[in-house]
Amino acid sequence: MPDILGRGLPSSIEGYGNVNPFAGALRVPGPISRAATVLRSATRGVPKTLPSVRAALDACELRNGATISFHHHLRNGDRVLNLVLSEIAAKGLRDITVAASALFPVHAPLVQHIHRGVVSGLAASTIYGPLADAVSRGELAKPVLMFTHGGRARCIESGELHIDVAFVAAPTADAYGNLNGVNGRAACGPLGYAVSDVQYADRVVAITDNLVPYPATPIEISQDCVDFVVAIDSVGDPEQIVSGTTRLTTNPTGLQIAETAAKIIQASGLLNEGFSFQTGAGGVSLAAAAFLRDIMIHRKVQGSFASGGITGGIVQMFDAGLFRALLDVQAFDLEAVASFRRSPAHQGMSASMYANPHNRGCVVNQLDAVILGAAEVDLAFNVNVTTGNQGLILGGSGGHADTAAGAKLTLITTQLTAGNVPKIVDRVKTLTTPGETIDVVVTESGVAVNPQRTDLLDRLKFANIPVVSIERLKEEAIRKAGPVTARAIENDKIVAVVEYRDGTVIDVVRAVPTISTTRTWRSGESPDRG
Amino acid sequence: MPDILGRGLPSSIEGYGNVNPFAGALRVPGPISRAATVLRSATRGVPKTLPSVRAALDACELRNGATISFHHHLRNGDRVLNLVLSEIAAKGLRDITVAASALFPVHAPLVQHIHRGVVSGLAASTIYGPLADAVSRGELAKPVLMFTHGGRARCIESGELHIDVAFVAAPTADAYGNLNGVNGRAACGPLGYAVSDVQYADRVVAITDNLVPYPATPIEISQDCVDFVVAIDSVGDPEQIVSGTTRLTTNPTGLQIAETAAKIIQASGLLNEGFSFQTGAGGVSLAAAAFLRDIMIHRKVQGSFASGGITGGIVQMFDAGLFRALLDVQAFDLEAVASFRRSPAHQGMSASMYANPHNRGCVVNQLDAVILGAAEVDLAFNVNVTTGNQGLILGGSGGHADTAAGAKLTLITTQLTAGNVPKIVDRVKTLTTPGETIDVVVTESGVAVNPQRTDLLDRLKFANIPVVSIERLKEEAIRKAGPVTARAIENDKIVAVVEYRDGTVIDVVRAVPTISTTRTWRSGESPDRG
Repeated sequence: MPDILGRGLPSSIEGYGNVNPFAGALRVPGPISRAATVLRSATRGVPKTLPSVRAALDACELRNGATISFHHHLRNGDRVLNLVLSEIAAKGLRDITVAASALFPVHAPLVQHIHRGVVSGLAASTIYGPLADAVSRGELAKPVLMFTHGGRARCIESGELHIDVAFVAAPTADAYGNLNGVNGRAACGPLGYAVSDVQYADRVVAITDNLVPYPATPIEISQDCVDFVVAIDSVGDPEQIVSGTTRLTTNPTGLQIAETAAKIIQASGLLNEGFSFQTGAGGVSLAAAAFLRDIMIHRKVQGSFASGGITGGIVQMFDAGLFRALLDVQAFDLEAVASFRRSPAHQGMSASMYANPHNRGCVVNQLDAVILGAAEVDLAFNVNVTTGNQGLILGGSGGHADTAAGAKLTLITTQLTAGNVPKIVDRVKTLTTPGETIDVVVTESGVAVNPQRTDLLDRLKFANIPVVSIERLKEEAIRKAGPVTARAIENDKIVAVVEYRDGTVIDVVRAVPTISTTRTWRSGESPDRG
Repeated sequence: MPDILGRGLPSSIEGYGNVNPFAGALRVPGPISRAATVLRSATRGVPKTLPSVRAALDACELRNGATISFHHHLRNGDRVLNLVLSEIAAKGLRDITVAASALFPVHAPLVQHIHRGVVSGLAASTIYGPLADAVSRGELAKPVLMFTHGGRARCIESGELHIDVAFVAAPTADAYGNLNGVNGRAACGPLGYAVSDVQYADRVVAITDNLVPYPATPIEISQDCVDFVVAIDSVGDPEQIVSGTTRLTTNPTGLQIAETAAKIIQASGLLNEGFSFQTGAGGVSLAAAAFLRDIMIHRKVQGSFASGGITGGIVQMFDAGLFRALLDVQAFDLEAVASFRRSPAHQGMSASMYANPHNRGCVVNQLDAVILGAAEVDLAFNVNVTTGNQGLILGGSGGHADTAAGAKLTLITTQLTAGNVPKIVDRVKTLTTPGETIDVVVTESGVAVNPQRTDLLDRLKFANIPVVSIERLKEEAIRKAGPVTARAIENDKIVAVVEYRDGTVIDVVRAVPTISTTRTWRSGESPDRG
């Protein structure tokens, strides 16, 4: 098939295989196959608890070359992945593939495991921190597989990503493997990113620091999916798992962009009874949600649901009756965790239910509007949230490409520049989300509408929203940024394969060997991914 | 393999296939395979609602020879199965296999569909009413497959029972296929028996009479598992779905048996902090639960959970703090439905989580004590809950064999006779639950303990519980029953294959051609099945 986005994709990639290039965001696939699975059934009377992670590795008969998986609900507070990998290293195992739903700065010890040959493969929807830098420098032999949140569920269910052992960090568990994220010191809310893993892995090990009497309720992941339970001292650092509260931006430019985004939604014709909405935890997104809240109250509109990672701001809208339900794959702050614990209509969902394009209908298909961020947007409205200006990996899709494809209206909010780097460019460095799924780009210097959306263009003009061409935004961005900084010279080596949600390859990331500095990761530099 | 229970099993059965005979209740199987599945993914923007069941049959391309499935949460109030079958008949389809979790008197129209060749196969865990009579008379060409509740989930998941289209009666649904049994006129509580169906069927059709705005919360079955949604006037008759309240027996013999059962549990050594318990909705079981309640209050014991079909009596114990949680596959009365709606620790569970022996650990494995009924018990403690004295099918295992195998203490409560028919016999007419999983038989004339349980025998004697031999109970039963009534002469034709929960064949039911009367079905005649 042709490489319709012209990204120069090879026909095959060493360590990945043949490339099936992206062929359109809304292509209708044929029948979808889900993999057969093999498990060991429990024997009555045999306990599932094991004294240590080491004992679990033995019980699972983990071997060289195996693929193991982790969820990222404990985010930068996660202690489980590092613990498991250090036990694997101590056991002398090699050539392990780590398939996580996301990898954070806290997972920097993976760099050493890569150097020592313990880990030879990675897969994740987002990668931040020193590990991302190491991958960008080409330190991993095989390219990283970067999927979307929905794409990860899809490729686990299809069997393309076979998991030998899934390790599930569990803020609460009982001895027979019922798990939840609602209670415990490391409470994180829903465990949506672990669901496909426990359904399709050969073996499932729950690791908890809050072993409670049977049955642990509410049950998010049930005992029939869990082989072993290991109690440890701490699965995560609560300070780093969820922020206490997420905060609106106070930056005037950010506020202006946020207000414009809310006005665009108002003008779009979608803000009616039953409106559905998603945005992320970034300051501009939170501010946009607050502006939207005021409009909804003023117009007396009750929405149907807000989805995604859920923040306290969205919880407040829900509690105020502005949404009838929350569909939550991951809580972003303590307010969201508390709401999930408290409110029956604050529902958890699996990553597959959330965003997998290859099931019988995911939640993103029901979205009216989503507000997303960008590292770069190009003239074809393609968005990059995978690499930064220097070509270093600084994230990945997460739910970005999923929600953009699903929502009726996808807004990208971005300032024209980051420091002296233009963010509206001729061609994105890495293509994460195709322009055909992006409707509007909202900046401090005007709003560009995807030319495919002539209906929307008319509505925004009618509402006196300052619409300009994307080319004009690009020129403005270049002017603002000042002299062009030299881009890093990239190597030929492919360090990451960016899969679109349907498993086609939408782009590759090549090595950036000239970078020697290691950045300090801050959450603020990461664009909202949904 | 040998037929270790000596049931005279053939090596193969026409319309069923090769017979893998029962080889022990607690045999540890090798690796368990779960079937690959094929589905059609949803296309964004394409609605799932269809105007009629007929349109759903067309959309699913249902063909001659297909297998379709139904759950039994609407019990004798169900209108969905008959509606679907009448549309199938009207469409001229033939040779359909109906794989229901249970079939009730209301499903009598299936008899006509069998006579006309529309339906040629049946599978169910229990069958009651005119359909059971017709099957018993040999009116179905192929034998009925009778599984346990856990065995049904097992054989769907393994692919042994492939479902072409699952029809899910949904008391509440939204247009994108989120379903619950909590709200609506036909509210029935959990939808646990439909879970394996929606996960493994090629196509899934939800049929509802309460289509609510998206998203229908609480979500019990989620949109990613449902292809189509059809709204109809009524999915069921609320009067027949759940009883308003379930009632304790007032019969003095029944009360005596119930009290003895509770005392046995007290004497067993199991009634400690964390005690777990299951019983059914029959009058004796309810009375036993009430006696147990008083003992628990007196001894200040808090149990961990009660499971199964849940009744108002169990809900009251839960609300009084006697159990920390309820694990509920099916609500038996309106009190249980209301509790499930109200209490977060009243958890729903799938049939697989409840009782499937081939997953990573089902709930019955965690049971301390279960109280079950019996149509017959024999000298080897084998129990029949499948056929009545005349050889007619009057039920089936349901969860009987599952809970008996899982619980540490399995009590059978039964009177010695039913009318002039002895219930303790040399050899059960049909073997539903093997004696190796039965610990005690409790009657009005004493208690028989399985000789394997010498530990229990000592405890009961110490507690002054009147222990007698099972032979003695049999003699007493014969004496009480009076002259032996002639048993119906049975045909050679096998009308039902009784599968044990692991998929082995534990018995067969043969045709009873000499029976001409049709009984009126009353719920009271059905022994508790868990």
